[in-house]
Amino acid sequence: MNRVYLDNNATTRVDSEVLQAMLPFFTDHFGNPSSMHDLGDVASAAMKTARQQLQALIGAKFDHEIIFTSGGTESNNTAILSALGVMPGRTEIITSAVEHPAVLTLCAHLEKTSGIKVHRIPVDQHGRLDLDAYRMALTHRVAIVSIMWANNETGTIFPVAHLAEGAKKVGAIFHTDAVQAVGKLPMDLKSTAIDMLSVSGHKFHGPKGVGALYIKSGVPFHALLKGGHQERDRRAGTENTPGIVGLGKAAELALECMDEENTRVKSLRDRLEKGLLERIPKTSVNGDPLARLPNTTSVTFGGTVGEAIQLLLNRIGVACSSGSACNSGFQMQSHVLEAMNIPSTAAIGAVRFSFSRFNCEEDVDQVLQVIPGIVKKLQGSYPAPVWWAKS
Amino acid sequence: MNRVYLDNNATTRVDSEVLQAMLPFFTDHFGNPSSMHDLGDVASAAMKTARQQLQALIGAKFDHEIIFTSGGTESNNTAILSALGVMPGRTEIITSAVEHPAVLTLCAHLEKTSGIKVHRIPVDQHGRLDLDAYRMALTHRVAIVSIMWANNETGTIFPVAHLAEGAKKVGAIFHTDAVQAVGKLPMDLKSTAIDMLSVSGHKFHGPKGVGALYIKSGVPFHALLKGGHQERDRRAGTENTPGIVGLGKAAELALECMDEENTRVKSLRDRLEKGLLERIPKTSVNGDPLARLPNTTSVTFGGTVGEAIQLLLNRIGVACSSGSACNSGFQMQSHVLEAMNIPSTAAIGAVRFSFSRFNCEEDVDQVLQVIPGIVKKLQGSYPAPVWWAKS
Repeated sequence: MNRVYLDNNATTRVDSEVLQAMLPFFTDHFGNPSSMHDLGDVASAAMKTARQQLQALIGAKFDHEIIFTSGGTESNNTAILSALGVMPGRTEIITSAVEHPAVLTLCAHLEKTSGIKVHRIPVDQHGRLDLDAYRMALTHRVAIVSIMWANNETGTIFPVAHLAEGAKKVGAIFHTDAVQAVGKLPMDLKSTAIDMLSVSGHKFHGPKGVGALYIKSGVPFHALLKGGHQERDRRAGTENTPGIVGLGKAAELALECMDEENTRVKSLRDRLEKGLLERIPKTSVNGDPLARLPNTTSVTFGGTVGEAIQLLLNRIGVACSSGSACNSGFQMQSHVLEAMNIPSTAAIGAVRFSFSRFNCEEDVDQVLQVIPGIVKKLQGSYPAPVWWAKS
Repeated sequence: MNRVYLDNNATTRVDSEVLQAMLPFFTDHFGNPSSMHDLGDVASAAMKTARQQLQALIGAKFDHEIIFTSGGTESNNTAILSALGVMPGRTEIITSAVEHPAVLTLCAHLEKTSGIKVHRIPVDQHGRLDLDAYRMALTHRVAIVSIMWANNETGTIFPVAHLAEGAKKVGAIFHTDAVQAVGKLPMDLKSTAIDMLSVSGHKFHGPKGVGALYIKSGVPFHALLKGGHQERDRRAGTENTPGIVGLGKAAELALECMDEENTRVKSLRDRLEKGLLERIPKTSVNGDPLARLPNTTSVTFGGTVGEAIQLLLNRIGVACSSGSACNSGFQMQSHVLEAMNIPSTAAIGAVRFSFSRFNCEEDVDQVLQVIPGIVKKLQGSYPAPVWWAKS
């Protein structure tokens, strides 16, 4: 049986073209971009190219609106802390109930330690944002709105351009964690009111350990990491040149093949969904049926536990993710599905399959072949043992 | 003429063995270490190995005392901010006048925005720390002492184990930026009172974009980046597996060849110094003659400008660094040489040559052949034009 990788929202395989682009920067063009010699110049020029490649992918007006970071978490943390820093008179944050921990954990920390008020906008059973609640929360007390472009678990897409217009009206900075959307959805930031946007290289076939933060020209900014003058004083630390070159190449490839691959990837995803719904009773799909990433499906198998399905699939070479985050051996329900009011008994049976351009029809067929048996076996084994119960 | 790279304190070439170790983690073992499937397990196991490799190099008692970061700047920022966070009743920092900007810029920022008092311990004309001033500054008001193990510009080594004992007596956390020392000096942290230590991969033939922070077991700690549960809640963000594997391999190689390479590298450095002092009048070496990194020399050529030497050397294939940091076209004197009371007219003629195990005798001979002519030419061209003057 072939290995089937359907966990691309967790991380993706680095494209071989990306790796080829990176290689010279480890052992040949290995200079420090800040150095005043030829090796430094080569590294510095390569960074410029990467910045322009990412600029093209996200439709930024200027390449200098992009700074490179160590990944999505650093970008998200930087954006939120910067906004609070530049607007000390504003003490509220708006976010959603279904954000990534890189936003929610920081918000909870700020709430606890700095007296910041956090509005967590709820979602409905399809994961759609409560726009009325959003409007209600928008006041001149809000320093930053941080709402993701697309959800990592369900793929639900939020109307960020529209949300940004609202934030603009009250003078709040609008940030979006677009880690799951960049490279999968067309973007033209220069035509939006989005002030900041987080990018992660390894979510679209770039390397791990590198990301970016878009900061619209004119938006006030405070650096998180302080030190040298790199990135025009916006992010200190020797630049990860190979990683940045890889991120740039990944951006170029994503832009080139986005239309074609989205269509193909979506058809694979839809084929899997259809097959699962047809073959397995008590199965449902989580997320917005109208606005969803083309590569993601979160499927609930009634009367089962997601981790169990995932582990049994893993034993036969299929990598996917359960809807919940596993923490030190304790099974915890996904905060995303919980926010969608999916009953915990149903939610613990959720599995996320996330595709990439490296998947093919055989992958889908292989999963469809094995999963009905796995689910049937698990459904028969209930009630679940105590250690699977929600903690 | 061969290319000669003598700027290894800025960054080093990735060792080909390091790159080989990293490669599978881009395109084959590319899983997210947090994922509950085989690809995640492989990545997670590789991280464990890397942690042990670094543990061996720095002589930590436990591998879990190490967290991986994006580099030296993040490690330094994290250490200092953590100490202030865990000891809110203490509002002073002790550092040295010759630290890296990753420490000094943060300290200046804290002084300005948070009312933190910063003691910058001065150095003498050889770059040696004023131990009396250090003792005077040590009180129970000090949250953290952050003093580098070895200076990046002169190579001067500070007695960090001794300094840490002093900090312990007043209950302050002792952190050392060991970015230039790790891989060059033997370390046995478990036998010292050092609480925290910063590491950067690219300074010892590992990749850029990855570093580490040692946090002695039992030392209270606040995470800087908040989000997922990676690194036992001490550093959120998907782990840079290829980078971490590379850092681990670089640590293993450094440990293996440290004794032998130190001897060889030191002899190359000494040969260069001797040659320069013999051949060029008005030349002197900066830094502690008794306690200096084996690979570093900072040389002042009287009546010249370091950048000019550096740029002319670059034109004939020799990469080195001037003692000063160039900022947006304005030539600024090195804060290190300034702290050493080296007159600014002399200090601007400083050039740093830093070796690695990839250098050989021919490199030294090539530099010795060309540099007397360059310096002579420059010395004849003075007084310097206005734009070279200290800003």
